[in-house]
Amino acid sequence: MTRAANSLELPSSDANEQERGATFRPKFDANGLLTAVAVDDATGDILMLAHMDRTALAATLETGEVHYYSRSRGKLWKKGETSGQIQTVRRILVDCDQDALVIRVTVGGDGGACHTGARSCFYRALGEDGTLVRPED
Amino acid sequence: MTRAANSLELPSSDANEQERGATFRPKFDANGLLTAVAVDDATGDILMLAHMDRTALAATLETGEVHYYSRSRGKLWKKGETSGQIQTVRRILVDCDQDALVIRVTVGGDGGACHTGARSCFYRALGEDGTLVRPED
Repeated sequence: MTRAANSLELPSSDANEQERGATFRPKFDANGLLTAVAVDDATGDILMLAHMDRTALAATLETGEVHYYSRSRGKLWKKGETSGQIQTVRRILVDCDQDALVIRVTVGGDGGACHTGARSCFYRALGEDGTLVRPED
Repeated sequence: MTRAANSLELPSSDANEQERGATFRPKFDANGLLTAVAVDDATGDILMLAHMDRTALAATLETGEVHYYSRSRGKLWKKGETSGQIQTVRRILVDCDQDALVIRVTVGGDGGACHTGARSCFYRALGEDGTLVRPED
């Protein structure tokens, strides 16, 4: 799935083509971002949710390793570059209007995804009383 | 988990509190939105990804049925109001910085989530040749 950033097709104004076509037409929002959900390919667990700009998506397709755009740092971010938690792409699913991706990955390093040390970023649940609980604790 | 919109706590500037605390402090972006991923509670399948503003999140917590903010229509959107595909909340997971939610749901109506008729919005995969394929076809 090697693809250069400038070869990514533009979204179609024809909803039928965008939603039912076979052409990958990633739709970036007004900030130039789309949303990506990383899922552990082995377990199906959702690991994290982050954003990609055109450059990050192209780098992901070119290398087979997931790159995001860090909104807080304002730059390209190769996941795992410092932590070793490299996310190798196994499969990319695209939603109806092509503004969101589910990326099934194999994770390097310790197998986790969250900078807090948790395996998944979604380590807290909203309890009945409105407070957050950590089910795994 | 009933909660009025105006009683939702604000995000903390203390990362430790935001990431490890027990207080739900949903973090809306510059557009007043956070991201929600709806997951079928029975199967674990990702059904859709959409956005919530403060009103939509509060309505979700108050009613136990998922409400989103439609970016295209610019208004509150109770999922399933016309289609019958009501999403009843079973569990809400919150990510580290509290700007994304995973909502495990039971789906009413025909059990689907996508306006195209597909069960999940993620019905296409990016194939090796860079085109989109429908694995279920």
